[in-house]
Amino acid sequence: MTRADEAGRQAGVRLLAVAPGSAQTALTVQERHVNGHGICHGGYLFLLADAALAYACNSYGVSAVAAGADIAFLRPVPLGADLVAEAVERARTGRSGLYDVTVRHGDVVVAEFRGRTRQVPGLAQPT
Amino acid sequence: MTRADEAGRQAGVRLLAVAPGSAQTALTVQERHVNGHGICHGGYLFLLADAALAYACNSYGVSAVAAGADIAFLRPVPLGADLVAEAVERARTGRSGLYDVTVRHGDVVVAEFRGRTRQVPGLAQPT
Amino acid sequence: MTRADEAGRQAGVRLLAVAPGSAQTALTVQERHVNGHGICHGGYLFLLADAALAYACNSYGVSAVAAGADIAFLRPVPLGADLVAEAVERARTGRSGLYDVTVRHGDVVVAEFRGRTRQVPGLAQPT
Amino acid sequence: MTRADEAGRQAGVRLLAVAPGSAQTALTVQERHVNGHGICHGGYLFLLADAALAYACNSYGVSAVAAGADIAFLRPVPLGADLVAEAVERARTGRSGLYDVTVRHGDVVVAEFRGRTRQVPGLAQPT
Repeated sequence: MTRADEAGRQAGVRLLAVAPGSAQTALTVQERHVNGHGICHGGYLFLLADAALAYACNSYGVSAVAAGADIAFLRPVPLGADLVAEAVERARTGRSGLYDVTVRHGDVVVAEFRGRTRQVPGLAQPT
Repeated sequence: MTRADEAGRQAGVRLLAVAPGSAQTALTVQERHVNGHGICHGGYLFLLADAALAYACNSYGVSAVAAGADIAFLRPVPLGADLVAEAVERARTGRSGLYDVTVRHGDVVVAEFRGRTRQVPGLAQPT
Repeated sequence: MTRADEAGRQAGVRLLAVAPGSAQTALTVQERHVNGHGICHGGYLFLLADAALAYACNSYGVSAVAAGADIAFLRPVPLGADLVAEAVERARTGRSGLYDVTVRHGDVVVAEFRGRTRQVPGLAQPT
Repeated sequence: MTRADEAGRQAGVRLLAVAPGSAQTALTVQERHVNGHGICHGGYLFLLADAALAYACNSYGVSAVAAGADIAFLRPVPLGADLVAEAVERARTGRSGLYDVTVRHGDVVVAEFRGRTRQVPGLAQPT
């Protein structure tokens, strides 16, 4: 999994915890993540949530990928913020999964993400 | 706008074109964008599309921000791929906008993104 | 509110409960709701969830409308099923709200809906 | 197909046209479709769009179902309005499809819908 999330790690994402159907990731907003206004780029909020989703949907021992996701940006996130994304399985039917990922800055929710996943048993497990 | 998209630029996003209600951005998939399987992280596909959205929705001379977006990941994208994201306005009502962003690798569509925007006249224009 | 949800009521939707930020609606799947395969039309699952959303987002004494929603259809719903939709506020920022609506058949979740709302203070309150 | 869309027809939906990957449906907004404010219930706009989606995604001779959809409500629709929904295939990969459905009142777009479909070859073809 670590190699699998090499891109997330290079972007600054850290894995905090993973359990069957759930995961938590973290990101500290650095200069490279912010735009001219000193606000975190929405793309990195998505990337952080998507990383939590990837860990959560792969937590059952069968390879899975994100088929899509919706994100709602609720509040601007400043430089220096310590963000935590928490992914929780909402539903699972056959090979399809639905996960909610909440991104928080302290106690404040800054984004809500809902991801759609699909198990791909043929795909090599990330190691 | 350039300063505003500093984060996108640092992530490797280039602006190709912008016109009222539309924009095109590009990204070449590098080592830092891929996961263990050599596949581009979905977070960067989103970031590329989101950057095109930002340019397009700010093209009318009034500051606007993304309120949310949905992305469908259609095909895996390999290392080295030259991606182009094209944002087109789908609807505008009052301060709200709806934009479709198609991400292509050559002629092949690899992701479809639909972004929801909101004009924020009080916000300083990016320069 | 009852008059406001006249259309929902004519479609067979019943209001079970409403409280600040939440609401529950119910629908018994009848002949007029099913397709040739004896499966409830997705449009009525949406309508049921949307009605719960409308009650929940109007529960604060300020008129609000749905700006959009995403629904995931998880399992087919047979003729005769007693469905309950439960709307819960997920986030509120300024005039915007985000609500999750879960549609259940007994203990089984058959659809997950996420609605985006906007308060419109100028709009006459439904009575 | 007609039997399959019995529920849609009972709701007032008419099929205008169907071709491989596309379809058009229509609905005239009647008393039963409107709320207290004389505005068409969002659930029926969804149902109309969903019916167009169903015809379009079943147009290839293989049974398919909607896995989910997002709808953006852009403008209120008055009693008596003649609505047309036009579904167009946006992408197809393996058994998955993505369709855009635009709902118009005359020349004015009142809702934009994006549906996600899945072919289910085991399912009996609607007749």
